[in-house]
This record gives sequence, structure tokens and C-alpha cells, in this order.
Amino acid sequence: MKFTIEKKDAKTNARAGHFKTAHGIVETPVFMPVGTLGTVKAITQESLEKIGFNIILSNTYHLYLRPGMEVIEKNKGLHSFIKWDKAILTDSGGFQIYSLSKLRKITENGVSFNSHIDGRKLFIGPKECMDIQNTLSSDIMMVFDECPPYPCDKRYASKSMDLTINWAKECKKYHFDKKRFLFAIVQGATYEDLRKECALRLIEEGYDSYAIGGLSVGEPKTLLLHNAGLVADILPEKKPRYLMGAGTPMDLIDLISLGIDMFDCVMPTRNARNGTSFTWNGKVVVKNASYKYDERPLDENCRCQTCKKYSRAYLRHLFNAKEILGPMLLTYHNLYFYNDLIKKCRRSILKGTFDKFVKKFKSNYDPFLR
Amino acid sequence: MKFTIEKKDAKTNARAGHFKTAHGIVETPVFMPVGTLGTVKAITQESLEKIGFNIILSNTYHLYLRPGMEVIEKNKGLHSFIKWDKAILTDSGGFQIYSLSKLRKITENGVSFNSHIDGRKLFIGPKECMDIQNTLSSDIMMVFDECPPYPCDKRYASKSMDLTINWAKECKKYHFDKKRFLFAIVQGATYEDLRKECALRLIEEGYDSYAIGGLSVGEPKTLLLHNAGLVADILPEKKPRYLMGAGTPMDLIDLISLGIDMFDCVMPTRNARNGTSFTWNGKVVVKNASYKYDERPLDENCRCQTCKKYSRAYLRHLFNAKEILGPMLLTYHNLYFYNDLIKKCRRSILKGTFDKFVKKFKSNYDPFLR
Repeated sequence: MKFTIEKKDAKTNARAGHFKTAHGIVETPVFMPVGTLGTVKAITQESLEKIGFNIILSNTYHLYLRPGMEVIEKNKGLHSFIKWDKAILTDSGGFQIYSLSKLRKITENGVSFNSHIDGRKLFIGPKECMDIQNTLSSDIMMVFDECPPYPCDKRYASKSMDLTINWAKECKKYHFDKKRFLFAIVQGATYEDLRKECALRLIEEGYDSYAIGGLSVGEPKTLLLHNAGLVADILPEKKPRYLMGAGTPMDLIDLISLGIDMFDCVMPTRNARNGTSFTWNGKVVVKNASYKYDERPLDENCRCQTCKKYSRAYLRHLFNAKEILGPMLLTYHNLYFYNDLIKKCRRSILKGTFDKFVKKFKSNYDPFLR
Repeated sequence: MKFTIEKKDAKTNARAGHFKTAHGIVETPVFMPVGTLGTVKAITQESLEKIGFNIILSNTYHLYLRPGMEVIEKNKGLHSFIKWDKAILTDSGGFQIYSLSKLRKITENGVSFNSHIDGRKLFIGPKECMDIQNTLSSDIMMVFDECPPYPCDKRYASKSMDLTINWAKECKKYHFDKKRFLFAIVQGATYEDLRKECALRLIEEGYDSYAIGGLSVGEPKTLLLHNAGLVADILPEKKPRYLMGAGTPMDLIDLISLGIDMFDCVMPTRNARNGTSFTWNGKVVVKNASYKYDERPLDENCRCQTCKKYSRAYLRHLFNAKEILGPMLLTYHNLYFYNDLIKKCRRSILKGTFDKFVKKFKSNYDPFLR
């Protein structure tokens, strides 16, 4: 995997770069919308392309349960099944098994668990996880890992880290198509020494690139940034660094400053469905009574099709009336905003004005906007 | 109101025509998607325009409750509130008061009822109904009517018809802007003599045009067609005839043959949300197990963006996983199909080949397709 760094920021660890996948070029920093079940909720693939996304994330665990691998196989992979010709990264399913399934039992070989849909008994280990991702034909596959919760005692975190490292090695054996990349995942909870050890051992083994897992799971923001920075500094410079599951607009800016290149998060899409939108001034909860007569768009500085056309009063009405168009219009806006934010970070890094951009963003952004 | 008949079919009572509203020209026969609360469910206004709709229906009763007239007034009417620059017809609310509200009490002056949302006591009579429609700035307003259920005894039907005729007269007093049209509604349940009497008395009074109400409410199809034909034959030829609330693709074809020009129905949108699609071969229930691996589009003869891109297998998966994209893609297709159907009727009337078109349609269409 070749990662080209186009420019490094002088004042922070931020960088702008790009890499080529079997389905086109991905420019970094990049935000990947989450399409858990082969659809980014409440938006069409055409709209994702129109916004400008070149990569989305999908989920091994969920797709394995529904529609199942037979359907994907018959449809010749996930791209062709969902009609998305750009890149797809698939999460390995580890995180979902821990957060969704019941009665799981972890052994050295993998995890036995009951489906969260119909309760049927299933098993996924490194081999099964790679089999699924090979069938999906993901452009970027993630190794099977264990994601410990926060907080987590050190003894457990250490054992879990060993498991993740062993499973990563095992996954490598089933990585056949070298045009598809395999990323290892650095775990170690919030323990500095474990994080360092895990990163170093994975680097020694050698993977296409490396992700940081087990953060953005409820820990305080200082711990998120501290651990992310710590691991980012150890990871090879010439590989894209992916922090899984982050975050708020402010998190993204701070993590980019620490040298993180890739992000995914359900926040823009999930919040959209709950009626919360992200704007350059902060969050706007569209149901608020104060917007009842508000003829302004969600964000006067946004050029998305929702903001160019519809008023806050109309959006508020749609959410009050539980109309599907509400989540549709807000999802479009929130993803447009996240993409716009990250592209502006990228452009300012390339122009050498990233620090000014961050300063301006933070002075305008009120996370508690009412 | 000027209705231009472009062509009359030689073998049936079908005709192709057009009329001009304050928001553009409407060509007939026409199907109006139902946008009850100021949004056609699960589709954007942009997509409605892209499909080719020039008029939608919205609902007085629903908009009066939510968002309420203050919001619409502040936004200078419904067109500007929902950002729809083409024509809007508003149903008078009579039908909804009977079907949705509780504890209603009908007097000569109007109906007292409790809101189906929060139970608050409300009153709508002819004046209130026109006030609301004037505030909405509807291009076509419907008179306030009583819509008796099916079946309905003759005594009630007759009394109810008198009420509807009186209310229609009353509505006329509040019809100020003559660029907006006021349509009267022919009631009379399924009684030939009442239907005739109602039509004649309304015609004598004189309205911009006339609708047929109280059909497509559960009566057998033979009764629907018989009553529709009966009234259509009495209504002035040089006015567009609107049958409210119909129907299936087959109903539309049959009603066009009887000289009906305008239609509205929740069927394409509601069925879409339940996973049923209309195709040139009949209904396709996308959740059916037989489509599990089916790589074909919903309808191989359809040129809509859903059919050009997505497979039945993917649509089935979306519905099984309860993903919003399922209703979104199916709503687009179903509305595209209804519009396509009605435009093809229109074109074949203009070309003098309507009977051939109907024959071919019926021979291909299987209402019980599996």
C-alpha cells in the first residue's frame, strides 16, 4: 500500500495525502460515512457521490447476518450488490460482537455468540472474519480484534491485547488479494505501556496500515487525545492512520492535528435521524420551539441542497410530524457538513494555513449552541 | 377556469387536455401524488419535479393541525413553506375529519371534533375551511363536504348530500382570488338518483370545476365505475373531472376511459413504504423470498433511477433490514410508474391509440403477480 504525503503541516502533526485503492483514490484526511448494512442510512448512493465521498464503511458482522454471504456471493461482492463503485472499508465485526450480541464466549480461536436478530448460534474467528471480508471484496479489511470497554482493568486489557495481536497474525494468512489492504488495530485500552507495546508488536509483524481501536468508546476527551497522539507518534509516518469511531467536528480537528488521517462515525447520520444538525456555528436541534417561524436555512454558510432550499421552520415541521423527509434532508446536510469540514482541513494543510483554519473554526463553533 | 381539450378518444370517453393554474400548466389526465403534511412521504420535492409532476395534493385538515396556520402565514403560503413552485390542490379536510377525528358532531354550520393528535376541541365549517385554503394559497381548493361511508343508508346519504350542497354554496362566498380555483364535490353515496341530483344542483350553482367524492372508499369496483361513469356523463364536458382518492393502475385506466381527468391516491407512496411496488407486469412484493438472489430490477421496462441501478435482491435486503433507503427507492419507483402510466395514457389519447394501449396494458398486467 502506497500512501503519498502531499504536505505536512509546520505547526501540528497534520498531513494531507492520498492512497489508491482497487476502487479509486482516497484523499486524506478523509471521513467515511457509516453504511452498516450496505446503505448509509436515509441517503442514496447517488447523493453520497454528489457530496463527494470516495469511501464508505460497511460492517462485516451485520452483513454476515443480513443479507448473508450467499446473497453477496451471488451478487459478486458488496460493491456490485449495493451499486457503489468507490472504495469500501469493512470493519471486522469485533466491536459489534461485543456491543450487540448476547452470550458471547471468547476463546483463543475466536468468539461464539448468539445473533442479536434471531438468537442463532454463530462463531467468528480471524479466519471467518477474513472469509467474510474476502467475499465482500472490501478495499480495506480490518483484522479481527477484541475491543475492551472503558473503563477496563489492566490485566484484562493486557490479555485482550495479546489476543488481538495473535488474531491479527492469523488474519494475515487469509489476506490473498494484495490489491485489497489489511489494516491491523492497535488496542490496549487507556494504558500507555500497553498501547505502545501493541503498536510496536503490530508494526514488527507488518501490515498495509494501522488503525487505533478501543477509543471514542466513552472515555473523557483528554484520554482520547492523549492515547491517539501517543499511538500516532509510534505508527509509521508513511502509512495512513485510522482512528476508529470518532467523532464530533471538534474531535476530528484535534485528531487531524495529532496526525490521524482517517475517520468514521455514525454521529452525522444518527444525529440527523434524531433531528440534530451540525453547522459551522455548532449543533442545531431542529425541533426547538425557537425555530417555529425561522425562515433561515440550517446553516447560512452551507451550500448543500438542504440549506440552499429549505427553512428551519419546514425542517422542524417535518420532524414534529415524523415525516421521513426530515431525516433525509438532515442526513444530507450533516454528511455534507462533515465532508466539507474535512476537505477544508485538507485544503488548509495543503495551503499551509491549517492553524488559522482551526483557530477560526473553534472561535465560531459553539458545541452547546441553542 | 379554462380547460382546453386537446383530443377526445373516438372509442371511449377519454380525453387529453390541459389547464393553467397560478403555478403553471397541468396536463390531463393527471395523477397527483399525495403530500398530506406538506411533503410527499419519503421523496424530495426535487425528485417529484425530476419525475415530472406538475401538481401535488396536500391536506387542509392535517396542515391546520400541524404546523398550524400561523407558521404557514409567516412563510407566505404553502408553496413557499415547502418550496414547491408548481401547482397544489388542497383537499378540504372533510374526509379526514370523518376518518381520523374523534367525538365529531355535525351541524348545519360545520363539524366540531377533537384533534386526532392531542384531542383539543376544534371546529371547521365552510368558512373555516376556505380561510385555511386561502392561507395555504392553494391553486385548487375543494369545498367543505361530508363524505358518507360505504355502505350508507339512503336517508343519511340524502341528508348528507344536502349538507354538502349547502356548504359548497357557503364556500363560494369566501372564494376571493379567482386565479385560484374552487371545485365542488359530487356526493350521494351509491344512489344513482342522489348522484344525479347532486351533480345537477352543483352545476346549476356553478363552480370552477367538479370532483366526484365518496367513491373509492371500499365499495366494489363495479359500483365505483358505475357511479363514476354516471356522474362523469352529467358533468360539463369543458371542465376537468376529478375523482378523489383513486386508485389502482387498473382503476385509473378504466376511469380515464369514462372521462375522468384528475386523480390522487396514497397507493403508490403507502405501498412503497410497505415494500410493494407497481410494475408494468403487476405488483411486486419485494420482501418475497423468491427475490433473495434476484439481480433484475423491479421492472425491466422502467427507466426510473431505482430500476436503472438497483436489484430486487438489494431492495429486498433493505426492507428486511428496515432501512429507510428501501421506502425511498420504492417510493421513487412507484411514483415514476404512476406518472409514466398516466403520461402514456395521455400520449395514446393524443395519438388516437388509447384503446390499443389499454388492451396491451391489461394483457400484461397481473394484479395478483407473485
